[in-house]
Amino acid sequence: MEGTEMVPAHPYLPTSLELPGFHPALMSQMYILGTYGGASALVVLAVWLFSGRLRTADRLLMCWFAFSGLTHIILEGYFVFTPNFFTFSKPHLLAEVWKEYSKADSRYAGRDPTVVAVEGITAVLAGPGCLLAVYAIAAKSTYEHTLQVVISIAQLYGDIVYFATVVLAGVEICAPGPVYFWFYFMFMNGIWIVVPLLITIRSWKAINVAFASTKKKIA
Amino acid sequence: MEGTEMVPAHPYLPTSLELPGFHPALMSQMYILGTYGGASALVVLAVWLFSGRLRTADRLLMCWFAFSGLTHIILEGYFVFTPNFFTFSKPHLLAEVWKEYSKADSRYAGRDPTVVAVEGITAVLAGPGCLLAVYAIAAKSTYEHTLQVVISIAQLYGDIVYFATVVLAGVEICAPGPVYFWFYFMFMNGIWIVVPLLITIRSWKAINVAFASTKKKIA
Repeated sequence: MEGTEMVPAHPYLPTSLELPGFHPALMSQMYILGTYGGASALVVLAVWLFSGRLRTADRLLMCWFAFSGLTHIILEGYFVFTPNFFTFSKPHLLAEVWKEYSKADSRYAGRDPTVVAVEGITAVLAGPGCLLAVYAIAAKSTYEHTLQVVISIAQLYGDIVYFATVVLAGVEICAPGPVYFWFYFMFMNGIWIVVPLLITIRSWKAINVAFASTKKKIA
Repeated sequence: MEGTEMVPAHPYLPTSLELPGFHPALMSQMYILGTYGGASALVVLAVWLFSGRLRTADRLLMCWFAFSGLTHIILEGYFVFTPNFFTFSKPHLLAEVWKEYSKADSRYAGRDPTVVAVEGITAVLAGPGCLLAVYAIAAKSTYEHTLQVVISIAQLYGDIVYFATVVLAGVEICAPGPVYFWFYFMFMNGIWIVVPLLITIRSWKAINVAFASTKKKIA
């Protein structure tokens, strides 16, 4: 890719993005996606097996919050605290994940302040919150639904800001190809719109039932 | 202020910010602050008087959500849907508010995508949510605490992104002077950190009590 000054030394859009010291990807797309997918499947399977005595809905929620929390802490946390991941010249899975994902959103390699702010909140607050939710659901804690609402609203808010700023800035940040736009950008982020919305509605209703029951008791 | 090309035609920082068609403020700082402060005081007074039969805590919360909701919808909503407010050459209170506030944060005049995204969510979703909360608290609805948590987490999230992106971008966006930095930027935004945090803690506890009561009933 390197040549005259007019050709960017990286595969990301916009071509004007400057990434001094960029080192090309060292792992294949299949290896990166396979490892993340496989590790996530193992987490979900483990939580599903260990939660055998609980209700199906609670087991599914625990799987979601375990997967979501570990993604926030490990993947997104790595991004937040590793500004120079795109310069790594030795194979490091997490650096390679972000070199690859930056093809769908070059704001990651370019360290866009909004992406860093949203990912920072997600990694540092929402991530541990998700793991606490796994416990709270298993323990049938009195705060299990409130915590699920808090985390889900935070995930929704972050995702809306994430998508809206792309539209508002009007800068092309996604490389050509349906995988980058539809799978990485739309689908992988869309998950954190759809699932948190469903969880918020479910927990909202559960809290309503609890208060309705309290009022009946008083009456 | 207009002169050679090196002098910006506006009072905002950074001086490199380009605002074609900028028209200087037409109302004084005292008039703008006095009108916003006076109108807010009237709203709070009206809600306080009309909620006389309710508990003090609920009355204070209703005052907060009425003030907060009207600020979100009227002030912030005007900003979101009026990209060219800084060009207005006739006195318009809401345009003048944002010409004045842009001295503390020029991202408003400059239409920074992150500020527009956060203000859009605040004006369109949180604002009406606040007014619904006024009703929900008065009606002692089963969802009053969930709604308060949802709105407060959204306000907190928006404010964290708002402050964090300033630090991360490292661009000076506030004109010199303690009023702009400490009063406009820190205090007027800090309110929406402190109050939502207190409300979240209070409603979190109230939901805990409701679930604890439900469990006792079953046991």
